[in-house]
Amino acid sequence: MLDQLTIPVASEMAKVENIFDSDLASEVALVTQAAKYVTRNGGKRIRPAIFLLAARLAGQKSDDLPYLAAAIELVHTASLLHDDVVDNAALRRGKPSAKVKWGNQVSILVGDFLWCKASEFFINHGCDRLSKVVTKAITAITEGEILEITRLNDITMDEATYQKIIEGKTAALFGICGQGAAIIQNLSERFENALEKYAFNVGIAFQLTDDVLDYTSSVARLGKDSGADAREGKLTLPVIISLKRCSNEEKELIRDAFITEQISEAQFKEMAQIVHGRNGISETEALARHFAEKAKACLAIFKPSIEREALMGIANYAVGRHE
Amino acid sequence: MLDQLTIPVASEMAKVENIFDSDLASEVALVTQAAKYVTRNGGKRIRPAIFLLAARLAGQKSDDLPYLAAAIELVHTASLLHDDVVDNAALRRGKPSAKVKWGNQVSILVGDFLWCKASEFFINHGCDRLSKVVTKAITAITEGEILEITRLNDITMDEATYQKIIEGKTAALFGICGQGAAIIQNLSERFENALEKYAFNVGIAFQLTDDVLDYTSSVARLGKDSGADAREGKLTLPVIISLKRCSNEEKELIRDAFITEQISEAQFKEMAQIVHGRNGISETEALARHFAEKAKACLAIFKPSIEREALMGIANYAVGRHE
Repeated sequence: MLDQLTIPVASEMAKVENIFDSDLASEVALVTQAAKYVTRNGGKRIRPAIFLLAARLAGQKSDDLPYLAAAIELVHTASLLHDDVVDNAALRRGKPSAKVKWGNQVSILVGDFLWCKASEFFINHGCDRLSKVVTKAITAITEGEILEITRLNDITMDEATYQKIIEGKTAALFGICGQGAAIIQNLSERFENALEKYAFNVGIAFQLTDDVLDYTSSVARLGKDSGADAREGKLTLPVIISLKRCSNEEKELIRDAFITEQISEAQFKEMAQIVHGRNGISETEALARHFAEKAKACLAIFKPSIEREALMGIANYAVGRHE
Repeated sequence: MLDQLTIPVASEMAKVENIFDSDLASEVALVTQAAKYVTRNGGKRIRPAIFLLAARLAGQKSDDLPYLAAAIELVHTASLLHDDVVDNAALRRGKPSAKVKWGNQVSILVGDFLWCKASEFFINHGCDRLSKVVTKAITAITEGEILEITRLNDITMDEATYQKIIEGKTAALFGICGQGAAIIQNLSERFENALEKYAFNVGIAFQLTDDVLDYTSSVARLGKDSGADAREGKLTLPVIISLKRCSNEEKELIRDAFITEQISEAQFKEMAQIVHGRNGISETEALARHFAEKAKACLAIFKPSIEREALMGIANYAVGRHE
């Protein structure tokens, strides 16, 4: 579905893949090998798609755009590599994570390497202001993730804290896909803000949907272990909503599931049923749709174009996907 | 001893500490707390000292210099945080490592956070070219460390590979302390090269001395576990030299020490004695002195000054220190 939406920028999207194949080589063979493995290992490429479409909405093609799109995806990939260590993830995008393949050490260092490459692309193909906003976004990612860690297994966590976490760990980098495109095309403040807000809201919708999928999807479709959030102690909106409404008995069951050494399949299913029953799923889905609509409304100040259509479609995709 | 050498830039060195105290704050309390812990947790500050002295040798004071010196030290600190996870280190600079205090997760993410802060300082107080060479140096650090990992416990490793590893993991960032100072002061190529080579060679001398100290120092003096390199499987020059000369029996003993599950104190002492006896220590020390002399020779093209004297002294310190 995403492939259809990126047709207007298909050649640039292909260029992004070429950059991954040819611009991440290192003298150290394992670096090249691991960098290739993690960048070729699928991924939806939704961030480069948004960046490239927004940049075309806002101006002309240039040879720099695919490098900047690649850089944004590399920031995301690097943060996944560091997450895999953090989360002890065994599967990533349906394949063994780099951490399982080469160990913590390589996962961390190849993540660092990809960040360096991203910085290099931003410096060589972007501008000072782009580097500044990107650095701010990466800071926000790390702060969001640390905030998340400090609240693991805490069933008193509220919606405001959850919102702050996902704004940091997900929406900030999405925001860059819109804002960065505006910056590189030298748009005025009004249009820059519109593109930033569009992409930021898509990011929130995307993360809300992710958090729903963790309760509803299977490993085959999601490409990573389902129920992973609960196992890792992450309180996400579906469960936060449910906790406000459930009985003491149900609350205890959820708390036990979060603090138990190894959550069983049956225990997870029981918890997922409560989350369903107390409307944690449906309300999170509704909120995701709300943010997708908000995102689309930001595009109203641009005149109609195939790129604007595609960006609208991406907002729908963010909430409509099943993987 | 290093304190004496940095008297010409004492006020800027103090400013660096102030920056650590006031410019690393985050909305997320644990980020602020951990960032403060790792930056206040000692460290020799040899990199900021070299940068500030070289910058004064090359031109006038400016308010940007302490920020850039702080940024270089932050890159180093961030890489230590990632190393602690990689190396499973319990002690760092004589105190519990961040990894022991807050776990792998926080160690990685606070390292990422400090890198972002360093980037921010380089962007706000430096220039494009400085950002470029710094990015290149950080790339070299990660490549050097991954190369090291691929050769862990490999007793066939040769001097050339060892040299490549330490050039990446240590000397590259030292090089920036000299080159970066030249760039920020707009020096001509000849002087930029001289300062880069000076600092790069000090870095090699510094690392060689570190590797000797791991075989000769006690935990009290070194502030980290002695014999750590062998335990972590790192073949360093003292042992590489010894392996070329020792008997088959001794070779076996060293190999066993490297591959054994938990190296005992007695086993380490036995190995250290072989390394001493086969001149691994004395020859590595001699090589370190050679690089320190090479470093000092690079400064000959500058006219005498207290800053040049101090930089000469730092080259001596790099090889003369006992911690």
